Amino acid sequence: MKLIRFGEPGNEKPGVIVEGKRLDVSGFGSDYTEQFFETDGLNRLSKWLEANQGDCPHVDEDVRLGPPICRPSKIVCVGLNYAKHAEESGMAIPKEPVLFFKSTSAIVGPNDDLVIPRGSEKTDWEVELAVIVGKKASYVTEEDAMDYVAGYAVHNDYSERAYQLEREGQWVKGKSNDTFAPIGPFLATKEEIQDPHNLNLWLKLNGEEMQNSNTSDFVFDIPKLVSYISEFMTLLPGDVISTGTPFGVGLGLDPQRYLKPGDVVELGIEGLGSAKQVAKAYKQ
Amino acid sequence: MKLIRFGEPGNEKPGVIVEGKRLDVSGFGSDYTEQFFETDGLNRLSKWLEANQGDCPHVDEDVRLGPPICRPSKIVCVGLNYAKHAEESGMAIPKEPVLFFKSTSAIVGPNDDLVIPRGSEKTDWEVELAVIVGKKASYVTEEDAMDYVAGYAVHNDYSERAYQLEREGQWVKGKSNDTFAPIGPFLATKEEIQDPHNLNLWLKLNGEEMQNSNTSDFVFDIPKLVSYISEFMTLLPGDVISTGTPFGVGLGLDPQRYLKPGDVVELGIEGLGSAKQVAKAYKQ
Repeated sequence: MKLIRFGEPGNEKPGVIVEGKRLDVSGFGSDYTEQFFETDGLNRLSKWLEANQGDCPHVDEDVRLGPPICRPSKIVCVGLNYAKHAEESGMAIPKEPVLFFKSTSAIVGPNDDLVIPRGSEKTDWEVELAVIVGKKASYVTEEDAMDYVAGYAVHNDYSERAYQLEREGQWVKGKSNDTFAPIGPFLATKEEIQDPHNLNLWLKLNGEEMQNSNTSDFVFDIPKLVSYISEFMTLLPGDVISTGTPFGVGLGLDPQRYLKPGDVVELGIEGLGSAKQVAKAYKQ
Repeated sequence: MKLIRFGEPGNEKPGVIVEGKRLDVSGFGSDYTEQFFETDGLNRLSKWLEANQGDCPHVDEDVRLGPPICRPSKIVCVGLNYAKHAEESGMAIPKEPVLFFKSTSAIVGPNDDLVIPRGSEKTDWEVELAVIVGKKASYVTEEDAMDYVAGYAVHNDYSERAYQLEREGQWVKGKSNDTFAPIGPFLATKEEIQDPHNLNLWLKLNGEEMQNSNTSDFVFDIPKLVSYISEFMTLLPGDVISTGTPFGVGLGLDPQRYLKPGDVVELGIEGLGSAKQVAKAYKQ
């Protein structure tokens, strides 16, 4: 299945994409929340669709897409998980996963505007494969880890490099501004993606290719990440693990290059669709 | 008002403490969620109590207390916010607030057991004044910041020092295990605390005083913290800002001292009550 949420910000309704068409599944009676995933919502929705698909209203293509999940408890990000990106950041390839958080208040729809924070001069892009957790996970083994994955989505882990690296430590400070976490266009459930460790992912700035890599370059694969993270915290259903970004962010260019109002960022991952954000200046 | 939540983990009900007595306010119809604070819940509850207090069932003293807030969107912690604690950690007093996150899945009731993570040898304590956010806050000035505060509570910011400092950077890794964020016994609303910048706070380990300080030693005061954080992320109603811990954590002792199963940690803050956690080993 491909899950979407659509409508005005804060009032999104749940939907699915079936054979390229968007369907409204409000009739199912549940948004894509922690509780939805926790209570076997994916299977319940799948069965409900078999019986009710024909009655689901179509959703126009011009209706805004929201993020395909509703208020996850956390976004856990993995740093430096592509060997080449660690290199461009001037950092060594980590011996074990580097973890940091991103505020969930940064989540927006895949095609919403990016708001450059007030006074920011170093807002950067990072295309990432997001893994959405399907079941509560604590001390999960690598062997069992994939049972805890609900699916995947495109995520742009926007980062303010001065906030992240020049403002008294701890990266979360440069990862959490509003609109810094566009997710989607859709959540593809696990069975839609044959091999999550062999997906092309790319990002263009004003039409120019900045990032183009493949998840086969992961330093740590998804089972390792799920297992590892679950040693340090309990992952809840609906939580997002963002698996790191490949070579080609603005920080790593010479000279460095950052986003300005009017810039257009497009990004996508094989099998997970594409998204497009236009950078805007912050206005009170 | 003093807000409590009581009952079994995950099924807590909202209550209040009035004249030392615990009352069940389930009849009010709302738990202490983001939505509660967002929709002027404190004022609505206060008015509801005027009319209905006499009809509220009493809650026995032996009923478990849960955390006094329900599923906040985030816990933002402030590092090194007491000059003496920065010193004992071997770190310089920061020029601007050091921020890090703690997973909300770590939140438990004030007197629940502390579970020492599997294999952990460096689980440490940190008594902290938690500030609970009352209104959505983005780019708030210091002058206006106190309008965005709902109240205060005791928080023990348990920290696994090896996970935090020896496992490839970013403190969140050592701050987020289950049971690492006992909050309470209650949330005291703002008007209950005359001066949050002059509160004694203390922590005892097996009866021995380990921390004893006063919030007057803050490097950055609450208006500064709220304003500062709101520049880097939007604070949502119900969010927790943990304002840092004073001198006296296990990391700073010579020799260092960490928690073992059976250890009893008691902590409290003037006007905000006290809490008690017994350390247990992790069991599958």
